Amino acid sequence: MINFETSPVGYKHWKLAIDGAIATLTMDVQEDETLNDGYKLKLNSYDLGVDIELADAVQRLRFEHPEVKAVVITSLKPRIFCAGANIYMLGASPHAFKVNFCKFTNETRCSIEDASANSGQRYIAALNGTASGGGYELAIACDEIFLVDDGNSAVSLPEVPLLGVLPGTGGLTRLVDKRKVRRDRADVFSTLAEGLKGKRAKEWGLIDGYFPTSKFQDGVAARLKEIAEADGQKQDAKGIKLNPLEVEATGNGRDYKYVSFKLNREERTVDLVVRGPETNLPTTAAEIEKLGDAYWPLRAYRELDDALLHLRVNELEIGLVCLHTEGDIDRVLAVDQTLVANKDHWLTREIILNMARVLRRLDLTAKSFFALVEPGSCFAGNLLELALSADRTYMLNSPDEKVEIATSELNAGALPMSNGLTRLQSRFLAEPEKAEEVLAHEGRFDTEAAEEAGLVTFAPDDLDWEDEIRVAVEERTSLSPDALTGMEASLRFAGPETMDTKIYGRLTAWQNWIFQRPNATGPQGALTNYGQPTQAQFDYKRT
Amino acid sequence: MINFETSPVGYKHWKLAIDGAIATLTMDVQEDETLNDGYKLKLNSYDLGVDIELADAVQRLRFEHPEVKAVVITSLKPRIFCAGANIYMLGASPHAFKVNFCKFTNETRCSIEDASANSGQRYIAALNGTASGGGYELAIACDEIFLVDDGNSAVSLPEVPLLGVLPGTGGLTRLVDKRKVRRDRADVFSTLAEGLKGKRAKEWGLIDGYFPTSKFQDGVAARLKEIAEADGQKQDAKGIKLNPLEVEATGNGRDYKYVSFKLNREERTVDLVVRGPETNLPTTAAEIEKLGDAYWPLRAYRELDDALLHLRVNELEIGLVCLHTEGDIDRVLAVDQTLVANKDHWLTREIILNMARVLRRLDLTAKSFFALVEPGSCFAGNLLELALSADRTYMLNSPDEKVEIATSELNAGALPMSNGLTRLQSRFLAEPEKAEEVLAHEGRFDTEAAEEAGLVTFAPDDLDWEDEIRVAVEERTSLSPDALTGMEASLRFAGPETMDTKIYGRLTAWQNWIFQRPNATGPQGALTNYGQPTQAQFDYKRT
Repeated sequence: MINFETSPVGYKHWKLAIDGAIATLTMDVQEDETLNDGYKLKLNSYDLGVDIELADAVQRLRFEHPEVKAVVITSLKPRIFCAGANIYMLGASPHAFKVNFCKFTNETRCSIEDASANSGQRYIAALNGTASGGGYELAIACDEIFLVDDGNSAVSLPEVPLLGVLPGTGGLTRLVDKRKVRRDRADVFSTLAEGLKGKRAKEWGLIDGYFPTSKFQDGVAARLKEIAEADGQKQDAKGIKLNPLEVEATGNGRDYKYVSFKLNREERTVDLVVRGPETNLPTTAAEIEKLGDAYWPLRAYRELDDALLHLRVNELEIGLVCLHTEGDIDRVLAVDQTLVANKDHWLTREIILNMARVLRRLDLTAKSFFALVEPGSCFAGNLLELALSADRTYMLNSPDEKVEIATSELNAGALPMSNGLTRLQSRFLAEPEKAEEVLAHEGRFDTEAAEEAGLVTFAPDDLDWEDEIRVAVEERTSLSPDALTGMEASLRFAGPETMDTKIYGRLTAWQNWIFQRPNATGPQGALTNYGQPTQAQFDYKRT
Repeated sequence: MINFETSPVGYKHWKLAIDGAIATLTMDVQEDETLNDGYKLKLNSYDLGVDIELADAVQRLRFEHPEVKAVVITSLKPRIFCAGANIYMLGASPHAFKVNFCKFTNETRCSIEDASANSGQRYIAALNGTASGGGYELAIACDEIFLVDDGNSAVSLPEVPLLGVLPGTGGLTRLVDKRKVRRDRADVFSTLAEGLKGKRAKEWGLIDGYFPTSKFQDGVAARLKEIAEADGQKQDAKGIKLNPLEVEATGNGRDYKYVSFKLNREERTVDLVVRGPETNLPTTAAEIEKLGDAYWPLRAYRELDDALLHLRVNELEIGLVCLHTEGDIDRVLAVDQTLVANKDHWLTREIILNMARVLRRLDLTAKSFFALVEPGSCFAGNLLELALSADRTYMLNSPDEKVEIATSELNAGALPMSNGLTRLQSRFLAEPEKAEEVLAHEGRFDTEAAEEAGLVTFAPDDLDWEDEIRVAVEERTSLSPDALTGMEASLRFAGPETMDTKIYGRLTAWQNWIFQRPNATGPQGALTNYGQPTQAQFDYKRT
């Protein structure tokens, strides 16, 4: 079982050091500290375990070190920054693991860009040696890239020429869409196993600068200082501590404080419950800082994030997540009101940004989601986003019991999808005014009002509810899991595209296709044959 | 060998009838007239042969019948409009064929939308019976869809529930992006094998209207009349005839009048030459109408289109196309000047639109393209787009010989890529002003000026030229063809996304992935098992 929780004292592969407004994240991958057997993490190559630590560091920098304005990522190994994802690990991994590995590493890189765009923490890649493949893709997720000019160190994407696969962590998309490298140069670079060094790399826009070995450290340090002092203000916020989540794992589920899930392995489904706050919560920023990571919207969403990752990677056969909520709608809405009222405070800003990231993680999870709105549920405000993320929403229509949903200001833009739209906008592409109407609606929606407003898919009554859900669940889980993954990826992200949706949609889909092809993973495939004395044999038919 | 040329007298599966401003395209697929053995085209299901005729009809309506303003697509079969792509044909086809089949049918549907958007020919789908899978995808490529309400006929996308694959012709994307069907309803519809009938289909936005059987013909006819009379003006243009292309096929190539290609099978490359006009061409619309399909820009691009299709489908092992041009730059530029000066005339408009479509076909071809600019070449104006489409451009730097390229007004917007940008804009995403500078440049570009302007990738001199090209070609053709396809699809279309790029990028990539998965095409896969007494067996791991 893969565990996604860690903290700096437990890091095996990274060192995190803070010096005022500057943080240094140093990669020093321990060859033998692998997540699985059968490979060694040479040359700062990484497996999922290495990336879990990186993701944790990026997250902690935002919550625990809000004073940091510049983060430099570098390596402790001589002459090598990072050799990318470990090839032997990839070669030995089943398809589903490879795909989930790439998805998580993509999310980590997007979280770096999110921190830069929204938290004022700029990332600098200080390439003190060669950055190849995933190593360069990590660099290109940073704001600026500096390369040592030692006559040897290069940046490269050798996946196509050496391995017969694509760079799996957004490299191709970021080349042409983020750094806007000319497409013919991107073509040359992406087929050049040895990559490019300082001068040419700078000329082509692959890096932002280069320094000779003797001036590398000073050059990078000077740039970091510039960034850290750019806005002239010292950030005097003190961070909060992210403590380990308390979770009780049972044979068929996990119970966190506000999140639980129960697996129905036979049916290949899981019931996932998010519980709202149990009491009325404080409303001032000072009180929230004092609560720290115990504050409901932070804790509940951290737990939800961990649960989603667990289901993705450790429960591959679970195809359908039934989303439930339990709690008091007013208390959830009160939380949203507090968050909105304090949205300029660093901690509430970070809490909202984290909620948005977790919800995007849900959007990008390759499982079906049905939201079930029943008496006692609290799909309101931020938790209404769960229902809006779901592929379908069923809401009980009962004459006797209160079943309601509600919106809050958080549904109006603070929790965007990867396509840049709110989930309400994505839902009402045909009638954009409906998203506005829903937000302007006074009070809660009962089942009829919710159906009328277009917020739910089906609203069965008491008599039909159980049967209708059961049949829908059985039908869903009987379908081809691959076809569902492709279908959901297509239907969830209508409307505009962003670099993120390109990475998760276009690039990932091509990569998954290539991962399945005999030319990559067949007995004579390039990925299989990497490091072997035998040469890859290709079927040259072009498709 | 598959032949893409046809004409109405040779149609086996379609009937094309013109009545004033209204054209009727009737589908009546002949079961036994298949392109390959081993399947029967029952229930108006189609194979590539059926779609080649449809593509021809759409093309001819624009050139031969400019008076047509409304086109209705319907079926001659009782109770069935079209059952989509033939499943047995798909099940029996190798992967590369399935992919190319889907690509061509996608291009045909995009050409319907192009005719509607740019040629004033609106398409109406008159579903006189059930439209399932590709049948509904054909309908959704039309502007409006009307369904007979006979208690039985439905629209459906049964691919996911019945076949374990995605609808392969843009259906999912057009559902949510063109018709903007609510995503949860799109989810239900796309998993419902039997589909939806009149009232619900209309309510969910899947169709535009429905009529009882007795009123169906009149209802559709009334709508067609409205469209045909909408702008009040009668179009008095008379069409031109598209005659069969004259082509000489040799064992290792094809020679058209202005286009030739020569296969180097051993090297898995092809040299493709486009020749410019041999004489000065007329400059008035009347003279061009008289020339008809003999006019260079129409004939040369029709030939190029046929050559590209031939290479795609009949020459799968050819991985690299070396693009050459031969001719007089001034004559090519003069053609562009004539086209721009007459761009409001219906025929020149159609000629330009066709050039744009052929160039998009090139962008979407899953082969590598290197443009080679040498003495005697004429990469100017519209033919410069070939070099800008190429993955790389090599231009000889010679002290003794004249090697030049040039722009024209046609490079400024009339020949857009699928992403909606010009190829110059796509090239200079990082420095948009460079696209403007190139267009404003006086006179031609010699090699140094072209390199300085960023228009070519490499400019080897006489001494290096041959070796450098040889090495580049050898390297390219040694790489994994699958990795190249995914890489090129990612690098060619930076910048904005459109419905077309979503269909060709995201949806196609997912579909290709699913086509390879054992759950679809393995011995127990759903596609393999379709119509068999055995049930599909799935590996339920979600990826």
